Amino acid sequence: MTMSHTPEVPETMRASVLSGVGEIAVEERPVPAVRPDEVLVRVAAVGVCGSDVHYYREGRIGDFVVDKPLVLGHEVSGRIVAVGADVDTGRIGERVAIEPQRPCRVCRQCKAGSYNLCPHMEFYATPPIDGAFCEYVTIQADFAHPVPDSLSDEAAALLEPLSVGIWAARKARIVPGSRVLIAGAGPIGVIAAQAAKAFGATEIIVSDPVADRRALVARFGATRTIDPVAESVRDLGVDAFIDASGATPAVVSGIGAVRGGGVVVLVGMGADEIALPIPLIQSRELIITGVFRYTDTWPVAAQLVASGQVDLDSLVTGRFSLEDAEKALNADRTPGSLKTIVVL
Amino acid sequence: MTMSHTPEVPETMRASVLSGVGEIAVEERPVPAVRPDEVLVRVAAVGVCGSDVHYYREGRIGDFVVDKPLVLGHEVSGRIVAVGADVDTGRIGERVAIEPQRPCRVCRQCKAGSYNLCPHMEFYATPPIDGAFCEYVTIQADFAHPVPDSLSDEAAALLEPLSVGIWAARKARIVPGSRVLIAGAGPIGVIAAQAAKAFGATEIIVSDPVADRRALVARFGATRTIDPVAESVRDLGVDAFIDASGATPAVVSGIGAVRGGGVVVLVGMGADEIALPIPLIQSRELIITGVFRYTDTWPVAAQLVASGQVDLDSLVTGRFSLEDAEKALNADRTPGSLKTIVVL
Amino acid sequence: MTMSHTPEVPETMRASVLSGVGEIAVEERPVPAVRPDEVLVRVAAVGVCGSDVHYYREGRIGDFVVDKPLVLGHEVSGRIVAVGADVDTGRIGERVAIEPQRPCRVCRQCKAGSYNLCPHMEFYATPPIDGAFCEYVTIQADFAHPVPDSLSDEAAALLEPLSVGIWAARKARIVPGSRVLIAGAGPIGVIAAQAAKAFGATEIIVSDPVADRRALVARFGATRTIDPVAESVRDLGVDAFIDASGATPAVVSGIGAVRGGGVVVLVGMGADEIALPIPLIQSRELIITGVFRYTDTWPVAAQLVASGQVDLDSLVTGRFSLEDAEKALNADRTPGSLKTIVVL
Amino acid sequence: MTMSHTPEVPETMRASVLSGVGEIAVEERPVPAVRPDEVLVRVAAVGVCGSDVHYYREGRIGDFVVDKPLVLGHEVSGRIVAVGADVDTGRIGERVAIEPQRPCRVCRQCKAGSYNLCPHMEFYATPPIDGAFCEYVTIQADFAHPVPDSLSDEAAALLEPLSVGIWAARKARIVPGSRVLIAGAGPIGVIAAQAAKAFGATEIIVSDPVADRRALVARFGATRTIDPVAESVRDLGVDAFIDASGATPAVVSGIGAVRGGGVVVLVGMGADEIALPIPLIQSRELIITGVFRYTDTWPVAAQLVASGQVDLDSLVTGRFSLEDAEKALNADRTPGSLKTIVVL
Repeated sequence: MTMSHTPEVPETMRASVLSGVGEIAVEERPVPAVRPDEVLVRVAAVGVCGSDVHYYREGRIGDFVVDKPLVLGHEVSGRIVAVGADVDTGRIGERVAIEPQRPCRVCRQCKAGSYNLCPHMEFYATPPIDGAFCEYVTIQADFAHPVPDSLSDEAAALLEPLSVGIWAARKARIVPGSRVLIAGAGPIGVIAAQAAKAFGATEIIVSDPVADRRALVARFGATRTIDPVAESVRDLGVDAFIDASGATPAVVSGIGAVRGGGVVVLVGMGADEIALPIPLIQSRELIITGVFRYTDTWPVAAQLVASGQVDLDSLVTGRFSLEDAEKALNADRTPGSLKTIVVL
Repeated sequence: MTMSHTPEVPETMRASVLSGVGEIAVEERPVPAVRPDEVLVRVAAVGVCGSDVHYYREGRIGDFVVDKPLVLGHEVSGRIVAVGADVDTGRIGERVAIEPQRPCRVCRQCKAGSYNLCPHMEFYATPPIDGAFCEYVTIQADFAHPVPDSLSDEAAALLEPLSVGIWAARKARIVPGSRVLIAGAGPIGVIAAQAAKAFGATEIIVSDPVADRRALVARFGATRTIDPVAESVRDLGVDAFIDASGATPAVVSGIGAVRGGGVVVLVGMGADEIALPIPLIQSRELIITGVFRYTDTWPVAAQLVASGQVDLDSLVTGRFSLEDAEKALNADRTPGSLKTIVVL
Repeated sequence: MTMSHTPEVPETMRASVLSGVGEIAVEERPVPAVRPDEVLVRVAAVGVCGSDVHYYREGRIGDFVVDKPLVLGHEVSGRIVAVGADVDTGRIGERVAIEPQRPCRVCRQCKAGSYNLCPHMEFYATPPIDGAFCEYVTIQADFAHPVPDSLSDEAAALLEPLSVGIWAARKARIVPGSRVLIAGAGPIGVIAAQAAKAFGATEIIVSDPVADRRALVARFGATRTIDPVAESVRDLGVDAFIDASGATPAVVSGIGAVRGGGVVVLVGMGADEIALPIPLIQSRELIITGVFRYTDTWPVAAQLVASGQVDLDSLVTGRFSLEDAEKALNADRTPGSLKTIVVL
Repeated sequence: MTMSHTPEVPETMRASVLSGVGEIAVEERPVPAVRPDEVLVRVAAVGVCGSDVHYYREGRIGDFVVDKPLVLGHEVSGRIVAVGADVDTGRIGERVAIEPQRPCRVCRQCKAGSYNLCPHMEFYATPPIDGAFCEYVTIQADFAHPVPDSLSDEAAALLEPLSVGIWAARKARIVPGSRVLIAGAGPIGVIAAQAAKAFGATEIIVSDPVADRRALVARFGATRTIDPVAESVRDLGVDAFIDASGATPAVVSGIGAVRGGGVVVLVGMGADEIALPIPLIQSRELIITGVFRYTDTWPVAAQLVASGQVDLDSLVTGRFSLEDAEKALNADRTPGSLKTIVVL
């Protein structure tokens, strides 16, 4: 016997499975086996991410194609109900937030600390790796991060998008006193604004063409909002620009808003190509980069929420059962929707 | 009397003046006055840069327009013949290479060490600041760098393009063991290859469609050359890509050649916009930047040449007098031309 | 006429002059002349620093000896009353906090951005450079930093010790989520704790043997206090240790509290030599460094106070007139004294 | 069957076992079992390190005590003769140099890229982990680094001390143009000098009181040698100081030789405590650190030797069989001895 667990773990579970474009349904599946270095987590809450919606509607993101049934969902919290042979049994019962990646730990990227760039990565809800729209998932023990009591299950699940915001703030080199422009006041923009504030940015300018979104982000970190239709960002001279919109015009104008030696971090997903102003990048020696997942963000993410510096609960605008996963995936079409949770 | 000098400094000098597109002629001009913190340098050699050629042929580079007479030339060596009141008179007679920039030293960029990004910069041969196609120039004393006896006047002048190569190597984060791709085997590409080698790169792949240029760079640092017409660079997985071509296809394919977390340094000047592959920049977290002049490169540049690690003399393919500056500016049209010097 | 000023600037002023160990008296002195790049500031408030006290009581700090009359005081706020020829006259009347250093701006350290390490530095109240226990002082215009209206004159003066705290936090590489140990809850320790919090440290442990000081710092940033007499710090495993005590046992035990790869920043002044545990430094690859003044801290310091993240006003425990400068210098002998201000 | 191997792997092997202070003898031991992610290496050459000698003579290094029989030796080259189930069988027959560490790959240090600081590290020849004075050893496949044909077995074994030199050069932030002082011209000092040169240092000053060692290092990278008995290093103003002596006076005087903002890297092992000049560390903001093993050095080490930039073969002054391991451990007492190899 190589696994310890609480008595109640069943042999099968409900899982919401995407079997084709727009086709998603609950199935009965085996509870996954736990490897020696893993834990088994009873899922409590799963956030819906734009990438889940994209797979559901398009069946692919770039080179990643859903060519066999896939379980979506990678923003996950829950409780450990069983542990592998190499894991401390004392962890059974622990509330956790899952860092939904399995790097190889052996390649040069992993050994250099850039495990998010591991070419052998297995990431939740990225074909062919299943995600967490289901009752039970496994993850290596060190990626099941403990959650303070003061965090709700929903906030714990949303430590994943907060990790994106933290990672963007790190890449943007935000330090106390930084001035930052963020394009887009969707979930990632709002979270990035809060992360920027927690990193000490003293001026956080958020541009979004939608007035309601500007009003929202003004409550969550933004020190100023801009309607890009009415106002140019060109002369801001900010230290960093974080694009959370994916919109080509926002990216181009945002780049022009950055001071010499400043940083541009591309977070939003949009066009496959954007025409960038090379002479400007050169004459200002701008640093342009993107984010791809994250490393070592959960502990600080949990602390930022626990201390009240970041508010995730207030971002939740919809809750659905596993059976209603399809409704959850379509909730973004409801006006005012910001962040949707599948509750198990 | 606030200036010390050798007896022979005259009151006027010859200067090659660009007065309009394609119009350049030698004029008699006053020898410039020396401010207290400056030195007066009798020019010995001036390299011809692509930007000089551009101003000569087009009358502008981007926002910089030649709207009044301009002296070209910013790759300069010579000998100090007079010093300002605050400068040690012992420097008179010293052979120097000129770092052709006058930052303000007061703004935030200057005080942060990024004086190349100073918004108040006065740079040689950049409108409206005169350059060095003339007999005498002034520069602040600390930007007149001593030259070892073993360096020729021409090599000393070419410490300027070597500085570009060193700066590119720094931006590219080249360290011992790095693998680097360089696009373009013109003067900057050849110098960047040598700089990369001096920084410890163990694989230096240079792509250029011209066979003669590939043959040349194979003698100057390249460990491998590629004809981009015949061979793809896509799967190289290099640590860094330095574009010294300015060619849009080279930039785009070069970006695809870089490993996750690697660096792209845009040196070559070309199109005002290039369509870049955003999803690739994101999923590999590439760092894309450009170079604009340099900081603190002359001392190490001089050492690299003195030690034989970099060969600049062999790059010179043409020499012209000040009166023949126009021929010097057109020498790039001669097959096999690499680097041209105006000798005074 | 090379200087613009408000009508009321007189020709002489009162200055408190240290003429020997323990000998300090108010004298009438000429108001200093303003150089072209400088401003003249009517002093409003000057904080008393431990180094002022040291010069007053011992006549020297290390190699710096008071061998001719010296004006003490380098924590200064005031109002611009005149400007040099090169400075915008619009600045007359502006409230400012003074960064009390005059680097050369030309040496390699200055040009690399480390102007605090300039070997030609002239620093206020450091022999033979006069400080600010007087009515008028001059400073280069870019080192007279504007002060928001919401800051008191006293808080503006204390941006100087806050700059020390910010610089220590930068050197300690404090980022959101950092765990930091600070030894000493005197003025610098209390300010460093607030700076650490503003930089995002989530655990700020302050050790001090004095109960009252521990109680104080618990109100200003510390998340936990330790009496080093009663409790060991050895197993804390913090990311950074900032010594603000200068006490040899605190330095030694603090070094043992740092995790592998962590940072030790020595701020406090104490023994000329401390026996450090070399094998520990090696096996944990600790990074041990010190702070010497600061670069580029005033703008962010002002913002941290304006936003309420740092409270300086509450640290002031004593106020004295210029005539009572001697009492101000001895105020540290009063129980409960933390920070003393000379008000002009 | 979970292991593939060449036919000739026997069941037992000879191993030189240290059973007490000064007691070492060859024993017959089982060939170690290969775990799925490991390779089995037939040892070819093992360098003798000062730490081996220390364990042999003193039975301990700091907290590491030889309290049960231990196999010494951690500078190892050989050939793969068997591979674990998860390793490509194509690697059988490959010549390799071993990076003799087994980090946990799961802790925060490992995931941050600092696997050398892993608190769960198992390191060759460090109690209770056996080393390589024996015929066969196992190591995880990614730590068995391929060796170019042009490297001898002895040079391949000495990639381990070269890794120490490379790691010291990285920690010392040596870049093209750096000026570095190295104390001690023993094996590590000589290798560090070569590494510094490969990193681009243009001035490499080595101090050693022994004339023969100074003469030797002058052939291997040093641009200047100093007899510390006769000459002070105080005013050198170097960018970095690497101590490879462990001698207290060398450490103290070396620290005084470093410019403001420069780096001190403590490599040599000596006293448990050294009294360091704190005010100097502060006023120059020196960065003092140590090295503990290395990360990601073998590939570049192999390239530096293959390219001729580093010469390891010439450092070997003695060769012994496994049966003569005791003589090998005492070879340092022979005048002129630099580096000793146990050949299998």
